[in-house]
Amino acid sequence: MKPTSKPNSERFFVRYRLTGDETEARAKAADLCLEQTVECPADILPKGFIPDHVVGRLESLQKSRAPGAPACEALVSFLDDTAGGELTQLCNVLFGNISLKKGFRLSRLEDGGTLWGKFKGPRFGRAGLRALLGEPHRPLLSTAVKPMGLPAEELARLAGRFAAGGIDLIKDDHGLANQPFASFAERAERCAQAVRKAAAPTGRTILYAPNVTAPAAEVHARARLAKKAGAGALLICPGLTGLDAMRALADDDSLGLPILAHPAFLGSFVTSPDNGISPYALFGQLMRLAGADASIFPHSGGRFGFSLDECREVADGCGDALGNLKRIFPAPGGGMSLQRLPELLKFYGNEVMFLVGADLVRNGSDIEKNCELYRRLVEKD
Amino acid sequence: MKPTSKPNSERFFVRYRLTGDETEARAKAADLCLEQTVECPADILPKGFIPDHVVGRLESLQKSRAPGAPACEALVSFLDDTAGGELTQLCNVLFGNISLKKGFRLSRLEDGGTLWGKFKGPRFGRAGLRALLGEPHRPLLSTAVKPMGLPAEELARLAGRFAAGGIDLIKDDHGLANQPFASFAERAERCAQAVRKAAAPTGRTILYAPNVTAPAAEVHARARLAKKAGAGALLICPGLTGLDAMRALADDDSLGLPILAHPAFLGSFVTSPDNGISPYALFGQLMRLAGADASIFPHSGGRFGFSLDECREVADGCGDALGNLKRIFPAPGGGMSLQRLPELLKFYGNEVMFLVGADLVRNGSDIEKNCELYRRLVEKD
Repeated sequence: MKPTSKPNSERFFVRYRLTGDETEARAKAADLCLEQTVECPADILPKGFIPDHVVGRLESLQKSRAPGAPACEALVSFLDDTAGGELTQLCNVLFGNISLKKGFRLSRLEDGGTLWGKFKGPRFGRAGLRALLGEPHRPLLSTAVKPMGLPAEELARLAGRFAAGGIDLIKDDHGLANQPFASFAERAERCAQAVRKAAAPTGRTILYAPNVTAPAAEVHARARLAKKAGAGALLICPGLTGLDAMRALADDDSLGLPILAHPAFLGSFVTSPDNGISPYALFGQLMRLAGADASIFPHSGGRFGFSLDECREVADGCGDALGNLKRIFPAPGGGMSLQRLPELLKFYGNEVMFLVGADLVRNGSDIEKNCELYRRLVEKD
Repeated sequence: MKPTSKPNSERFFVRYRLTGDETEARAKAADLCLEQTVECPADILPKGFIPDHVVGRLESLQKSRAPGAPACEALVSFLDDTAGGELTQLCNVLFGNISLKKGFRLSRLEDGGTLWGKFKGPRFGRAGLRALLGEPHRPLLSTAVKPMGLPAEELARLAGRFAAGGIDLIKDDHGLANQPFASFAERAERCAQAVRKAAAPTGRTILYAPNVTAPAAEVHARARLAKKAGAGALLICPGLTGLDAMRALADDDSLGLPILAHPAFLGSFVTSPDNGISPYALFGQLMRLAGADASIFPHSGGRFGFSLDECREVADGCGDALGNLKRIFPAPGGGMSLQRLPELLKFYGNEVMFLVGADLVRNGSDIEKNCELYRRLVEKD
């Protein structure tokens, strides 16, 4: 067993949180370095290139200062080539097999190296989306048409009212797929038209984002159909389609539409502080690497159980330097109300896309007026 | 807001484990019924069809008898149409938003109703795979070519030795993607050829399963390339590609190859007893619904932390009745040794595909002899 041809020697760096004292965490790190690459005990590896380069490398280990059970922070490096230039295999190296072991948590992709730059990432990012909307400073506003079960014409009527009220981005509820209640084609067509018509007199650019979460062979077809219908953005749930389906949409020059990522089906990764993937890495960094321009997640105190610290992590992962990937918008939602907007403004500042759904419909029957209030709340800053 | 045209009134049934006493669990169930469908508070829904049919329905609730913190078992039904006939949206209804809440665990898809039958599921299943291999009774044997970093010709040499030793199914390590060490095309070609050549004198049917886990637009291309090269099966990691990418392979009549599902990246779903998805539903039922003919998972006591109960769950989920979906093989691996085979035989019986990897290489240098021992251990039953 001889070494292969000269490898690219660039490495990428990843931080993990490993439970246990230093001895235990060091053993976990050694295990991780094998498990995420060669998947076999070190003693059966041929000497040379594979153990020296292909196996992950523990670069440093230190005790975690975070409260809770004892744990260490490990910095591990992997050869760029282990990911083979593909997001699917990169995710496998980052967290494939060790997802099945306890006490391993992916904390963050470390800035530096050359691998992150091999991914195009978000096409628009914050600056691109702001330029598209002509809103250089204030937080962006989004909402969702719902509920599942309404016919397409009712959903479109709602979308039109949101547009008349001046919401920047109007997305499908992520549970609107291609059900008989409102087929994707009819919904995308009617909603895009309603938004276009209602936006015209306002003089604003308003984007409608239909949900293209779909069977593997349908994602691109729906995205093309959406574009043809005049949709200005796309919504996708990469937890359901695979992250790479989102990346493929973002990379497609013939589409060229901003992408919103929805976190459905991904919550189990962030349930435990000792396992899974941190909100920073999952809803910030990985969404960004996979091409999202905005990453939706549930803000603290709504219908979901995220803590403020977790929300801060997502916002930071969307904005901290990572190769030359564009910064993206954190999009806190999940039961937010207009009443809470001042508090959210203080927490996120201007680099945010708010997502307020039911509250715009609930606060009295004048939806357009509620939307205007929503906008005034962020414009007064 | 008027009801849409007459819906299909068929419903599918799902069991969830909800933490808390009965009052708390009942509130969780009510929340789940809204969150997984209409995603908004009940008070803003138009009366009639949507609350009466589209919103999930709590059919029964009882205290869980399992040890641990108090919890209840809820049986919930959903209108078939909420899933819109698509696996992505079905997964969203099953566990999309509630994955982001604490204390909700998907326990099992309940047999009955018509929805499961709308998915083709496994093309081969146990009987089909046995027929293909000409092995009507005994457990099936599988192994993996590894490690990442070897050139294709070395991997092929190893595959040939496993085939000469009579292993039924020889798969790529799931970390072999399309790295420069061994490109997919060259590896699939060389390994398939080596297996064919080594199998011929044995008179056995031996399947080589290259790993087609790949970027969204590449999965099918690699599968076709694999088939053309003479591969007899396919390996895929649906946690990396999305479950529907696997379903699409299984449903493709022009491929017609058995599929092995690998659990990489899916471990976070089964880490906590109070959250996520049970091993029964995830590695048994969902893999099967998505077309796997065998579902790989780590057997207890190897390199991973699964308990025997969890392994039993996977085996049961692979074999219990679910619509008219074919039963599939549980494929326990993750550091299994020949020494443990008698114990595994007792635990799983004959309806299993064993996966022994490194131990076939480690036990002395005579790989063919180790493979023969592996086979004799299951044939003597």
